[in-house]
Parts: sequence; structure tokens; C-alpha cells
Amino acid sequence: MHITGAMLIGQTDVTGTEAVFQAVDPATGAALDPGYAGGTPSHVDAAARLADAAFASYRATPPAQRAAFLREIGSQIMALGDTLIERAMAETGLPRPRLEGERGRTVNQLNLFAAVVEAGGWHGARIDHAQPERKPMPRSDIRMRHIPIGPVAVFGASNFPLAFSVAGGDTASALAAGSPVIVKGHPAHPGTSELVGRAIRAAVQAQGLHEGVFSLVFGVGNDIGQALVTHPLIKAVGFTGSRTGGLALMRAAAARPEPIPVFAEMSSTNPVFLMPAALKARAAAIAGGFVTSLVGSAGQLCTNPGLVIGIASPELDTFIAAAREGVAGSGASTMLTAGIHQAYEDGVRRLTGLSEVEVLTRGNPSDAPNQCQAALLACSAEAFIRDPQSLGHEVFGASSLVVRCADEAQMLDVARVLEGQLTATLQLEAGQDADLVSALLPILELKAGRILANGFPTGVEVCHAMVHGGPFPATSDARSTSVGTLAIQRFLRPVAYQDIPDSHLPEPVQAANPWNVPRMENR
Amino acid sequence: MHITGAMLIGQTDVTGTEAVFQAVDPATGAALDPGYAGGTPSHVDAAARLADAAFASYRATPPAQRAAFLREIGSQIMALGDTLIERAMAETGLPRPRLEGERGRTVNQLNLFAAVVEAGGWHGARIDHAQPERKPMPRSDIRMRHIPIGPVAVFGASNFPLAFSVAGGDTASALAAGSPVIVKGHPAHPGTSELVGRAIRAAVQAQGLHEGVFSLVFGVGNDIGQALVTHPLIKAVGFTGSRTGGLALMRAAAARPEPIPVFAEMSSTNPVFLMPAALKARAAAIAGGFVTSLVGSAGQLCTNPGLVIGIASPELDTFIAAAREGVAGSGASTMLTAGIHQAYEDGVRRLTGLSEVEVLTRGNPSDAPNQCQAALLACSAEAFIRDPQSLGHEVFGASSLVVRCADEAQMLDVARVLEGQLTATLQLEAGQDADLVSALLPILELKAGRILANGFPTGVEVCHAMVHGGPFPATSDARSTSVGTLAIQRFLRPVAYQDIPDSHLPEPVQAANPWNVPRMENR
Repeated sequence: MHITGAMLIGQTDVTGTEAVFQAVDPATGAALDPGYAGGTPSHVDAAARLADAAFASYRATPPAQRAAFLREIGSQIMALGDTLIERAMAETGLPRPRLEGERGRTVNQLNLFAAVVEAGGWHGARIDHAQPERKPMPRSDIRMRHIPIGPVAVFGASNFPLAFSVAGGDTASALAAGSPVIVKGHPAHPGTSELVGRAIRAAVQAQGLHEGVFSLVFGVGNDIGQALVTHPLIKAVGFTGSRTGGLALMRAAAARPEPIPVFAEMSSTNPVFLMPAALKARAAAIAGGFVTSLVGSAGQLCTNPGLVIGIASPELDTFIAAAREGVAGSGASTMLTAGIHQAYEDGVRRLTGLSEVEVLTRGNPSDAPNQCQAALLACSAEAFIRDPQSLGHEVFGASSLVVRCADEAQMLDVARVLEGQLTATLQLEAGQDADLVSALLPILELKAGRILANGFPTGVEVCHAMVHGGPFPATSDARSTSVGTLAIQRFLRPVAYQDIPDSHLPEPVQAANPWNVPRMENR
Repeated sequence: MHITGAMLIGQTDVTGTEAVFQAVDPATGAALDPGYAGGTPSHVDAAARLADAAFASYRATPPAQRAAFLREIGSQIMALGDTLIERAMAETGLPRPRLEGERGRTVNQLNLFAAVVEAGGWHGARIDHAQPERKPMPRSDIRMRHIPIGPVAVFGASNFPLAFSVAGGDTASALAAGSPVIVKGHPAHPGTSELVGRAIRAAVQAQGLHEGVFSLVFGVGNDIGQALVTHPLIKAVGFTGSRTGGLALMRAAAARPEPIPVFAEMSSTNPVFLMPAALKARAAAIAGGFVTSLVGSAGQLCTNPGLVIGIASPELDTFIAAAREGVAGSGASTMLTAGIHQAYEDGVRRLTGLSEVEVLTRGNPSDAPNQCQAALLACSAEAFIRDPQSLGHEVFGASSLVVRCADEAQMLDVARVLEGQLTATLQLEAGQDADLVSALLPILELKAGRILANGFPTGVEVCHAMVHGGPFPATSDARSTSVGTLAIQRFLRPVAYQDIPDSHLPEPVQAANPWNVPRMENR
């Protein structure tokens, strides 16, 4: 498969008519061929009409076929071989092992959703059998299953050009639910997007599905995204990106004549709480793990540990000294785009310009373009509690702020003023600091989608129990996750069938249960 | 327990400071004592602070205690005896058998949620066990459970003064989820609301729960509702009422610094499709069932059959003749409020003023106040398809519009232009009209939350498989239901625990599973 600069609207290559943009190698600043001409609302309309036309047949696909389709996408992605990896390296500045690992994660994610489709629990099938003898009124036969919500718009993220982009978690879970998908490719990696889009398209064709099951559009600026979110045939939105971008989509979706749900994963500083006993036992080791988590991928991860909270003590000083040494010794690394680099620099400058903030150290500088120079900062808990929104605002990149608390009570107060988070981490020694941990956990449950101990928040497992979500502003909808198999539920809605003859019932609630789905039966 | 005119803020009786209103007996127009002085935003603030203070302990209640609390509410409601029924009759004009039945439904609903709390499936517990040997990276132990979203604001509905009001489905499901509840009582039945509120409060006390678990506030106008929805400590909203009211709450919730979900059940015309074979077999009998469903409770039900779609034929004429006879013979009945009566009259006048609409008949008039005079109207499918929003707009009350189609294709076109609905009904003969039914069902699945055959949509069973929801504008969130046990999921969000020591894990995901909840385990 080749990169051509086209959008993929169903099985048709369509060249846009708006301003042409090119990917840029962030390590060199060089523009990469080909140019991509942006799409217009009429391209979005064409893709949305196709998606709507595909919806009836696609949502009716039996589990085996839908699962085979998801697995076929993975096979087609693998078949792209080094073409994909090399293009992604050039477009993102991310190193080969990271991208090969991310490709594996992307394919595994598709395969996991294929298994979910086959297992069938997502139908949420329930059967309340008729009770014709019940007094004073007989009970009807009532059956529930879940159906997909309709065509979904997915916005590719810049920082995971494979796993959160064209064939990433949003696309995989929406396709698993039975929803056609229209992806707006991220303009930072259009070639990677086109290649993966072609892989999905080949899978659509290989499985004999309606071409409208998948389309890929491009565009810089907000117009094409607004056209997608406001199109009447689009019924839900998946987004991973900035708070500004997510809020704009939420506003647009809420203002529609028919409002639709937006599942936006936006911003998080992922606080790491250092328990006194853990610091006593292994302050330097914790610092080592922290620095690795902080500077990996130039800190461009949603779960980057941007906040560390400890209680002033010699052990905290040991942690800070070791973390300072680690960050000071960290090499600069290429950020994804000039825009992200600029925003990182601005964010660090804003924080370091505050009188409350002390610069503990910076990483090594570099003269190469778009280099992330890590930042380790500190402030007092008093200062943080006074202005948690300003000091706790996400700086996307390898920047972290150490918050020094006077005592345990103040640590709890810091936890209480936090905004919503994707994650919260506890460094603890099992059996020690039990009262502090017990006091922290109920606070953190209300702040974060995932609470972890003795690890670091980066590295999000794709599994059944994962929650990559959390209260606003971490996401737009704390009742959802964008990673893990529960993500499928974002795109489903329940439908009840009352006294419908068996021959007209959908398979998941037919008497014979031909798909063998798990069901809750009540007699 | 007495009616005093007070709001119930925790365990304290608080008299409002805003304009005093009184309930009105709609059958006589007489004002009913006592007066209720409206609350202010500071009353809402007091209730919200109490709810927030109660949240930590209430959400930690073990299943047995929470279930006992829900059952105790039911017992306390029954203990109100005839005082409750008589007050509700005076405030609503609804007859005794209807209110006694509704009380039974309300208590059963509380008991059903008590059983749900004990069964524990709502925790959504999932355990992905650690895989320390996995290559290239070990897998952590990851566990998921669901926690309540936080304090919930519930707006009582006028048309079910018990089952959708102070202790109705929204309150029962939110309390079952572990969320404290603040109810804004509907001003049409403040005495009924106060009595039921006192029953809940007595149950809070009997179970030794924090007083902030429940509060009840009053007020006419929109200020107190806006104060509730925009209060930062309120995390979700349940509402049953008009589209105008629901849209206002949705807008207010979306505009908050922290947007919150609104579960609004708003409007529906509940189309009834008459299959040709069913009309051939039993046109007059269908008409009889239809008229009973239409005029019951003066048509003041969310699932009232406001739209009937049939194919022009002698059998449709038979149906229409029988329905006309039934409606013409129907006695007028008292509507809930003068406002609802006025809106009904305006709605019928608007429809009958359209040149496309034919008046088939009206029910018997009455000189008594606030009487619903039923209306049976008709139009052509061409007219309906030309302007489905105007002709398909809900008229709350006993008004229904028969849409005459030329053929099956036109019937499908009518289905396609429908707005979102709570229900869609098929009158069919099993094994006949199979092609038409098969063509209709996939369209109706995208339009309605519940599809039923050979019954009428009024009478919503409270059970596990029920969906009382549907695409906008039937509700604000098609992914939810406000009746049935799935309603609990509106107020829950998932939290993941990664490598947390067992002693600090919440019960549903502890190794020993002390609450014996169903879990999905993956090794």
C-alpha cells in the first residue's frame, strides 16, 4: 500500500480541496511528502452518509464475522511492515522500539475486542419471562439487549500514532460495538494515518462489508472536526487530546439539535503520593522509577506523572536529590510536533515564572529542533492548596512538580483540592502507613479513574479491568473508559422487546440463544 | 407524620423564604393548606453540603444495610396509610385505585433495588490477575469496581406523584447506587412530597445513616432548580418532565465549569403500528385496547399512544370507526394541574388548526375545571412525512393522531422520519406480515427504547429487562433507562485498582470476596 495524500471515503480515494498540509519530521523540521489537501464539510457529509448506509448491515453482522473483521485489520496493519514503522518514526520522532511496541499493542487491542465480540457479554442480554398468572396484572415477556448507538466520529491523537489513532482504542471499541467509524486523522501523522486507514479499508473489503463502515478524512483547523461533530448522522464522538480541544467538541455536541455524547480524554497530572514508610524503605529507587516514567516518550503521555506529593522529611530530601540527579542527567528528546514543543516550553515558563515555584533542575538542553528539556519543579503544599488549578494544570511533556507537605493532614488536603485525574499513584509499604493510605484512598477514588500502588502510571494495560478515564477535566464523562474492554459500552444503548414473537427477536434474546451469549434470566 | 409546609434539609425542617405557594385540587380549583414557602440557593447549598458530607459514609454502607434502608423507606411509605393516598388524590385528581396501585409500584421498586444492591452485579467487578511471567513485560494485578458518581439532584414529576417523584425510580436507583439524593419536589403535589420525604427521612434515621443522605427542597419558578443543577457538589441529575424543562437542565449542566450528566426523560408520542393481518383479524379489539390506553389517567403518561400508523384499507376504517366510537364515548377526566390542562388544550388546538389534520372525534366535554376532553385526529402519511416535527410533537394528554399510509413503503417512511421515542408498538399476527415486521423492526430499534407487540405502551413494568429510555428527544441520553434495574448504572462510574494491597482494596474486589459479588476473573 502506498501513501498518496488522499482521504479514504469508503473505498474511494478522495483528494481534498482545502489547504494542503504536510507532515513534518520533528527531529529535522523537514517537510515530508506527499501533501494532504484538507477536506470540506461536503466530504464529511459523503462519509457520514456512507456510514449511515452501512450501519444497518454492519450492526447485524454475526459475532464471528465482526470478530474476523477486527482480526483482519490487525493482520493488514502487520502486513504494512516496515513501511508503517518508518513513516511513523519520521512523522513523530518516536524511536523504532516504541513504535513497534505500540503496533503490537494496537493489534492486540483489536484481537482483544474480537474476543469480546465473540464472548457476547456486551449485549447485556436480560430476559424477564412472562408471568401470565401474576396478580393483579400478568407480566409480559420482556427482553433487553444492547445495540450500537450509530456512526461514531473518532479524532486521532498525536501522541499514540497507532494505539490512539486511526485503528486505536476508540475505533476498535466502536467497530466492536457495531458502529461505523469516521476518523479525522491527526495532521501530525497523515502518512501513518493513511497507511493504517488503507489497512482498515482492505479488511472491510476482505470481509465483504459495506464500504461505509470506515472512512478517513483530513484537515487542519477546526472546520472539519466541527463538521463531523455537528453532522446529524454522527451519533457519538471519541477524542483524545487537549482540554481546549475536548471542551470545544463537548460544546459543539451539546449545542446540536440532537445532542450526542462526547467521550473526550483530555488532561491529567497523575499525582504520585509518597508514603513515609515507602520513602524510608526506598526513596532512591522510587526516584529512579519516577524519572524513567517522567522522561519516557519525552513525557508525552496522558498518564505522565506531573505531580509528586510527599511529606517534608530527610527521606523526601533523599527522593528529591535522586530525582534531581536523574532529571539533570536526562537527555533531551524530540517532541511530536513544533506546536507541542512550544506549548511545553510555554507551560514550563508559566510555572517557573510563579513565585511559589522553585526549579529543582532541568534536563540536558539540546540545539536540535523540538527538544524536550525535562523540568523538575517544587512548591509548598500551602501554595498548591491556594491555587491548585494553576499549579496543578497539565504541562504536556516531561515536567513534574514536587509538592512538599508539612504533615499527613496537609497531604490529604492536597488530595482534596486536586482536579479530576486519569490516575493516582501510591508509593507504599504494605502494612505500613495504613491509616494514611486508608484516608487517602476514598479521596482518590473520587478524583481518579485508576489508583495504583508501587508502580508508575505510564504504561496502560489493555485488559478487562482497566479504567482509562476519570472525573472532569480528565475526561468528559467519568462513567466511561477509553482503554480496556469496558470501552465498548460507550457506544451501546439498551433496547427492550416486549412480547415480540421469537422469530422477530434479535439473536441475543431469542429462545434458542443461537449466539450463545451470557444472559440474565428471571422467571 | 404531618404536613407542615417545610422543606426537609437533612433531619431539619426548614421553612423557605421565597414566595409561598399552595397545592390546588384540580377537580375543584380549591387551594390546599398549608402554604409552602420556596427555598433559595442558600437552602440548596445547605442541602448539597450535607449530601457531600454524607457521601463518604453512605457509599461505604455494606449491601445489607443499604438494602435494609431501601426496604425501610417502603415500610415508612406504607405506614403513612390513607393520609398519603388522600392527600395525593386531592393534589392530583387521580383516583384512589390508581394511587394505591402506584404506591405499590413505588414500594416494589424500592424492594427490587434492595435486591439488586444485595445481588451485587452492579459493582461490575472485574479482576485481571497479575501475570508476573509475561514477556516482554509482566502484567500488574488490575481490578475494577463501580462507585457512585456523587450526590444526585432529582426533579419530581407531576404525573406520577409517587412512582416518579420523591421516592420514585430516580431516587431509588440513586440511593441504591450509593449516592445521596436531593429532591426538588414538584409544586403540584407538595403535601404528597413532604409526606414521602418524611418517610425517607424516618428511614435515614432508623438506619442510623448520615442525615445528608436525603433532602427535599421546594420552589416555584426555575431558580431553585438552576441552583441545584449548577451546584458544584451535585454530580448528576434525574428528571422526568417536559422537553422544555429537560433542555433547560441539559444546557445548565453542560455550561458548568465541571459538566455533569443529566438523565432527562422528556417527550414521546409512542407510535403504534397496525400490521395489515392484525387489522384483518381484530381491528375492533385493537381499537378497544387503544382507547383504554389513550384515555387512562387522562392520557397523562409518558408512554401514552399519541400516534397510530395504519395502511388505508377497509380494516383500518373499521379500526378508526371503533376508536372513534370509544373516544366519543369517553368521559372527561380531571387533569393534574391547570397548567397541564391549558397546555393540552393549546396542543390540541394547534394540531386541529393545521389544514392537514382532520378531527375524527372528541371525547365528552365537561364544565368541571381542568377536564381532559379526549381528541382523536387523523392525517395522511404524506402530510406527516412533510412535517414530522409539527405533526409528531407530543400533546401531553389523551390526544392521538391516526396516520393513514397508502402502502407498506409509506409506513416505513413514516417510521424513518419519527423523532426518538420511549416506545414503539406493533399490532401483529404472529407469522403474518413477516416482511413488513422485519423491515420495521430495525428502523424502530433506532427510534425507541422499547418495542412491544400486541399490547399498549402504557404500563411500564419495573423489572430487569425494562428500558424506559430512547433516543433524543425522548430522553437526554439514549444509553440509559429511568425505569428498571439498569437505571442504577446512570449513577455509577468505574474505578480501577492496580497492585493495591488486599487489605486496602474495597470489598467487591478483595481476594476473599466478602460480599460475594459476581465477578469476571481473568488469569
